Amino acid sequence: VDPSDGKILPLILCGGSGERLWPLSRDDRPKQFLQLTGERTMLKLALERVSDRTQFAPPMIIANGKHQSELEAQLKEAGADAAGLILEPAVRNTAPAIALAALAVRAETTLLVMPSDHVIEDPDAFLAAVDAALPALKDNYLVTFGISPNAPETGYGYIKCGAALSEGVFRVERFVEKPNLETAAGYLTEGSYVWNAGIFLFRAGDFMAALAEHAPEVAAASRDSLVNATRDGSVIRPDAEAFARSPSVSVDYAVMEKHAKVAVVPMDVGWSDIGSWDALYDHVTPGPDRNVCAGDGIQIDTKGCLIRSEGPLIATIGVTDLIILATKDSVLIAQRGSSQRVKEVVAALKKRAE
Amino acid sequence: VDPSDGKILPLILCGGSGERLWPLSRDDRPKQFLQLTGERTMLKLALERVSDRTQFAPPMIIANGKHQSELEAQLKEAGADAAGLILEPAVRNTAPAIALAALAVRAETTLLVMPSDHVIEDPDAFLAAVDAALPALKDNYLVTFGISPNAPETGYGYIKCGAALSEGVFRVERFVEKPNLETAAGYLTEGSYVWNAGIFLFRAGDFMAALAEHAPEVAAASRDSLVNATRDGSVIRPDAEAFARSPSVSVDYAVMEKHAKVAVVPMDVGWSDIGSWDALYDHVTPGPDRNVCAGDGIQIDTKGCLIRSEGPLIATIGVTDLIILATKDSVLIAQRGSSQRVKEVVAALKKRAE
Repeated sequence: VDPSDGKILPLILCGGSGERLWPLSRDDRPKQFLQLTGERTMLKLALERVSDRTQFAPPMIIANGKHQSELEAQLKEAGADAAGLILEPAVRNTAPAIALAALAVRAETTLLVMPSDHVIEDPDAFLAAVDAALPALKDNYLVTFGISPNAPETGYGYIKCGAALSEGVFRVERFVEKPNLETAAGYLTEGSYVWNAGIFLFRAGDFMAALAEHAPEVAAASRDSLVNATRDGSVIRPDAEAFARSPSVSVDYAVMEKHAKVAVVPMDVGWSDIGSWDALYDHVTPGPDRNVCAGDGIQIDTKGCLIRSEGPLIATIGVTDLIILATKDSVLIAQRGSSQRVKEVVAALKKRAE
Repeated sequence: VDPSDGKILPLILCGGSGERLWPLSRDDRPKQFLQLTGERTMLKLALERVSDRTQFAPPMIIANGKHQSELEAQLKEAGADAAGLILEPAVRNTAPAIALAALAVRAETTLLVMPSDHVIEDPDAFLAAVDAALPALKDNYLVTFGISPNAPETGYGYIKCGAALSEGVFRVERFVEKPNLETAAGYLTEGSYVWNAGIFLFRAGDFMAALAEHAPEVAAASRDSLVNATRDGSVIRPDAEAFARSPSVSVDYAVMEKHAKVAVVPMDVGWSDIGSWDALYDHVTPGPDRNVCAGDGIQIDTKGCLIRSEGPLIATIGVTDLIILATKDSVLIAQRGSSQRVKEVVAALKKRAE
């Protein structure tokens, strides 16, 4: 089967379990299903980004089986057509997930691999970057998109751009792990480093060839799993036993960092992975008194706060630079700048539940 | 009827509507019904203070009719016997309320009038102060109890102690309104000023005589209201129409500040009216990291906070000196020192509801 009809086939990775936005994100409703930056959920924003059917085929979506109903509900709400829905039988990181999709289409299909839980404020600039990347595919390159950094972030991996291959496309000189602040500041000054955003463009066959070369166990397990998949209309349930044999490994580690023909297209598109409540505050434009508010609230002498309720009224008096989230069963209050430590709360809750 | 049997008859004022401890205190469950300082509610602590039946008769309680069921439930839980329950048909401040009780007993009955929503950490010292006050009643004095100040509080009225009448009992030189900080600091240094805590001891007849002299409309309205009351066992429902004719006025303003024979007994008894969340924090002994916590919570790098939940989990990260309260429907986050402004939240909510 190849639903691409010669167009670019978007592959939306929807399997994240995101705990960093607790208490809003939960196991049963991770970040991609949340409405964080405006009226639409992160998933709906991703679908909309590739909704021009003259350029893109209906997307394939790969997700965790337990999110099927939420996913289908959001697709319906968005009025989105999907070419296929692959429900992963286990969590095995991005390399096996992408392999399942790459194997489900013809080798010459062009796949645009995108996380479902990032925001891109300038979709036109993103589409221009995709256009710029296309020529490199003729030379069998695997292309990654890099975000032009605007701050010395220590939470992302970086990619050093090498020699130019074509207008806006560079050979990847090297991938670098999350740097410390000093190193990150150096990258920012140096100018040829971009953030690794986990967005890729390649032909399915080129990807599978690279995977077979650099991570043959992943390729084999994914192939076996897909061959023995159960299909129900456009829903594909890969074989669990075979899939479980795959190493759990990221596409960066399995393929991109090792392959000879990897290119990068730097782009400045208003990207954020909204990886924490601090990141959300920094990404959106605050209102009066630098507050970012959603839900029922009363603010008295309140400044620089992110306040968001999914139910209870939140009243604040005389507070500054706080992150405040409330759901029906939980409340988070964190000083701005400390929201990375939400994972400690989630860990404590898991320990409790044991 | 006189249920006092020659003993002191406690009169517990339970009509407060306390909004200053929102979101825990509400119209239907004001401060006196809340468990703020330990395992017992403020009302139960007040009942316990006068539970020695060799000295005190079973108390009379005066409350707002809408709190009858909550009140009766707490009396039952406390295993407390009450001589009578007067349900006010309207809110008319303390002078008419006390008059209803004073008229319901014999003129020679000694009444100990106490708010139901204060805490007294040293009940023995309080009982000693009551003992000290008794001789003044023989000379028909109305006695008020004054709290020895430990800080230049601007939220209380003060009483200046005059000449000694007997051991520990002084003639009241004057009542003074809530002072500014400078004046309050002067009072503290001067040493003869005490806080007006709204606790009184007098014979019912002496009080009614003073009321008739200084506030005859209050005395008349209360008398008419009680004469036409409906009685159901020990529950007295004064006539609403007559009671409504009474001016709404405090016992201080109506009687104490005007009467010639008013005495004061200073006492150092660990008193607090818990008039705000800040006052509660200041009154209790904090735990590790100066936090005062109750209910479900996870604290990470959290210092000097009052955190209390009636349901939701409250997780805090990297915050200092906050007051955090959560109920099923509301969350309050206030910087410590700003909790007096809770009334602005309550006012905003009332405006909304209009």
